[in-house]
Amino acid sequence: MSETRIIKPQPISGFPEWLPEEKLVEDHILRIIREEYERYGFTPVETAAVERREILTAKGIVEKEIYALSRLAAGEGEDPSTDMALHFDLTVPTARYVAQNAARLTFPFRRYQIQKVWRGERPQAGRFREFYQADIDVIGNGSLGLLNDAEIPCVINAIFARIGIGEFVIRINNRKLLQGYLLDQGLTAEGVGAALKVIDAIEKVSRERTVADLSAQAGIDAATAERIVDLVTRPVTIADLRAIEGGELYREGLDELGQVADGLAAFQVPAHRWRIDLAIVRGLDYYTGTVYETQLVANPEVGSICSGGRYEDLASNYTRQKLPGVGISIGVTRLLSRLFDAGLLKPGAATPAQVLVTVMDRAQLPYYLGLATTLRAAGIATELFTEGKKVGDQLKYADKKGFRLAVIAGETEIAEGAAVLKNLSSGEQSTHPQAGLADAVRQALAG
Amino acid sequence: MSETRIIKPQPISGFPEWLPEEKLVEDHILRIIREEYERYGFTPVETAAVERREILTAKGIVEKEIYALSRLAAGEGEDPSTDMALHFDLTVPTARYVAQNAARLTFPFRRYQIQKVWRGERPQAGRFREFYQADIDVIGNGSLGLLNDAEIPCVINAIFARIGIGEFVIRINNRKLLQGYLLDQGLTAEGVGAALKVIDAIEKVSRERTVADLSAQAGIDAATAERIVDLVTRPVTIADLRAIEGGELYREGLDELGQVADGLAAFQVPAHRWRIDLAIVRGLDYYTGTVYETQLVANPEVGSICSGGRYEDLASNYTRQKLPGVGISIGVTRLLSRLFDAGLLKPGAATPAQVLVTVMDRAQLPYYLGLATTLRAAGIATELFTEGKKVGDQLKYADKKGFRLAVIAGETEIAEGAAVLKNLSSGEQSTHPQAGLADAVRQALAG
Repeated sequence: MSETRIIKPQPISGFPEWLPEEKLVEDHILRIIREEYERYGFTPVETAAVERREILTAKGIVEKEIYALSRLAAGEGEDPSTDMALHFDLTVPTARYVAQNAARLTFPFRRYQIQKVWRGERPQAGRFREFYQADIDVIGNGSLGLLNDAEIPCVINAIFARIGIGEFVIRINNRKLLQGYLLDQGLTAEGVGAALKVIDAIEKVSRERTVADLSAQAGIDAATAERIVDLVTRPVTIADLRAIEGGELYREGLDELGQVADGLAAFQVPAHRWRIDLAIVRGLDYYTGTVYETQLVANPEVGSICSGGRYEDLASNYTRQKLPGVGISIGVTRLLSRLFDAGLLKPGAATPAQVLVTVMDRAQLPYYLGLATTLRAAGIATELFTEGKKVGDQLKYADKKGFRLAVIAGETEIAEGAAVLKNLSSGEQSTHPQAGLADAVRQALAG
Repeated sequence: MSETRIIKPQPISGFPEWLPEEKLVEDHILRIIREEYERYGFTPVETAAVERREILTAKGIVEKEIYALSRLAAGEGEDPSTDMALHFDLTVPTARYVAQNAARLTFPFRRYQIQKVWRGERPQAGRFREFYQADIDVIGNGSLGLLNDAEIPCVINAIFARIGIGEFVIRINNRKLLQGYLLDQGLTAEGVGAALKVIDAIEKVSRERTVADLSAQAGIDAATAERIVDLVTRPVTIADLRAIEGGELYREGLDELGQVADGLAAFQVPAHRWRIDLAIVRGLDYYTGTVYETQLVANPEVGSICSGGRYEDLASNYTRQKLPGVGISIGVTRLLSRLFDAGLLKPGAATPAQVLVTVMDRAQLPYYLGLATTLRAAGIATELFTEGKKVGDQLKYADKKGFRLAVIAGETEIAEGAAVLKNLSSGEQSTHPQAGLADAVRQALAG
């Protein structure tokens, strides 16, 4: 009957929205990440969704990927544009936040940040224009101990062991070591840059192609290229690396990597969860020492599920204070989407409550409300069925939403001050006095 | 030495950013809200930060308040504008989400949504352009039981009792009852609209002013205006309202309000936590039945800390399905800012960890790492001091960040496989074997 014009809502490409059963999985993962970050003493920071344009463009980022804000409708003669744009990562906002608040923060500053970021990517599968990132960084004032570089993989290990998506391995490198090694092979500074680019892509192409690319782009002979590919593709230990006679930069990188490896052992990170991998480069400009990537052992096609590294100076664009740091980022939305696609995570119930209190006789409402109140007071997430429907329909509703238990009370149970607890997967039923209901629910949920 | 141009970062008005010690308070409150929403069986939903412009402007919202998105830098000949804009509340996105996914959702659909929203307000104190809202709604397909209207204050009560910011009262009204009463006083439909507007502002002006405004704007005599003001400003019970002989709309509203009041009693919401208050109007168009506002008893100047109500149809702009609902919204950022200002909430520690493990002898690093690992494995959030500084400086750092306990181990303790636990506020110290450290920490934190 309505005269309202109907606008049919459509999904917007690149802006994923989960159904409740998927969102509950995302929340579960976000909760694990948050708890582990806090267990290691990282403090939450949240920055505004927007930054001033001059902050976002200070590092010469591709501006087409940035969404700027304007007033949808400006008044007569008003300029609708603003000087604000949505942030495209959490590193720039953190740098700005730390520089802005440096006098009120205590260093080393250990913060985590879990927020959406926005990028005007061309829509294509797996490319998101809005997505969650979950970052930690430790930022020093002037200097920062290498022990932090060792603690970071410890946090990664704790998180992914808890998420439980199969075995994973944290691949660790030190860019000084890799760069030093390349210089020692006779490469020029330019050649090193070109070689790093080739090594960064090593997993996407054949060995022959890598050797050819190294020769062509780093200006070196095939034998040197072969030697480089050998080293960066074979498993190495600190001892292997010590056996190589390297120059000053190589030795500095090796010393750092050795300290990180010692720290990992002392932090009791299981040996199979990390390895030294000289093929890890992580882009070209930002990281200066330790770098990390994390891979699922059985599903390498998912790509790196967590990466990061050590940088020389966080906020050189916003302050003259030198702020070295080390950090990692988990691309939660991309990870989740890939885990759903690979079947490694499966959506479950569409409700955070595990118990549905049904209503058989609406004249006895206070009794059912009392049952729900009792369970909630015991900390058990409980839904009370609010609509006037038959118990059979209420149980169908419970099935559809994935409740594990239903509470049912008819005339007999109400007369006895009791209720039936029904396990919705096994069909098993048992009767309990109201006072014992919460315990029975806890047992049923644990069993 | 750096040649980099320094851009001094400045706060952006209306986009609040908390320091860590404030953010931890916000997180604490958000956690309580989330836990209570889930305890009542509301499922999380998160919608994209953006909506298509046509969705946001469907209801004729003041468009100047909406931030539209454009590409910061478009290519040659490209249009930088997009069809997207940031959402200004969570109701429009929920309506669009429910209409879009109706076939895949189970009704009644109980969802909560805690997200930032954006409004291009003119900067002024207490006006935010980016802020958190925390909403719940129960949405029916075709119809929705009144029991939901009774459960909502139950959730409000649970949340604010836990946040612990002093006594509060949930003021409840039914718009049908109020509108019916006004019609019964001889007001025209137009007069009712005008009267509601005046009543909505009743707390900001004098009684005389309200009476005068009612006469002038609703076109009624002073005696009628006095009678209306009398009723909406005095405490009333369901019995009082039954004593008034009202028309059909009045009686329908009274019946609904009576059911909600009965439900509240059955849900065991303490009687001093809610009251019927006929002055509660909540805007003019959206709500059609029950309405709520929540006030701090000792600090009414903070304004309503939670409000909402029952509406006829959530998504008439996006679907022909009739989706009635009832819900509330907590304006978390505004609430937090006012509670900080009023001194009702105080920032505490700048870290989520309560224990700092200090490092006295760096040659014994594995020992200290072992202590931290032990505490973390026991679920105790722990920071390990990573920099090469004297223990005295480490304890100063602990004080500055607000840690409650420090763990210290020198040669003697290490030889004994033990550590000293220092209470940083009392100065009290005790020595514990490593195996007993987690228990000692738990006791100290509980004490």
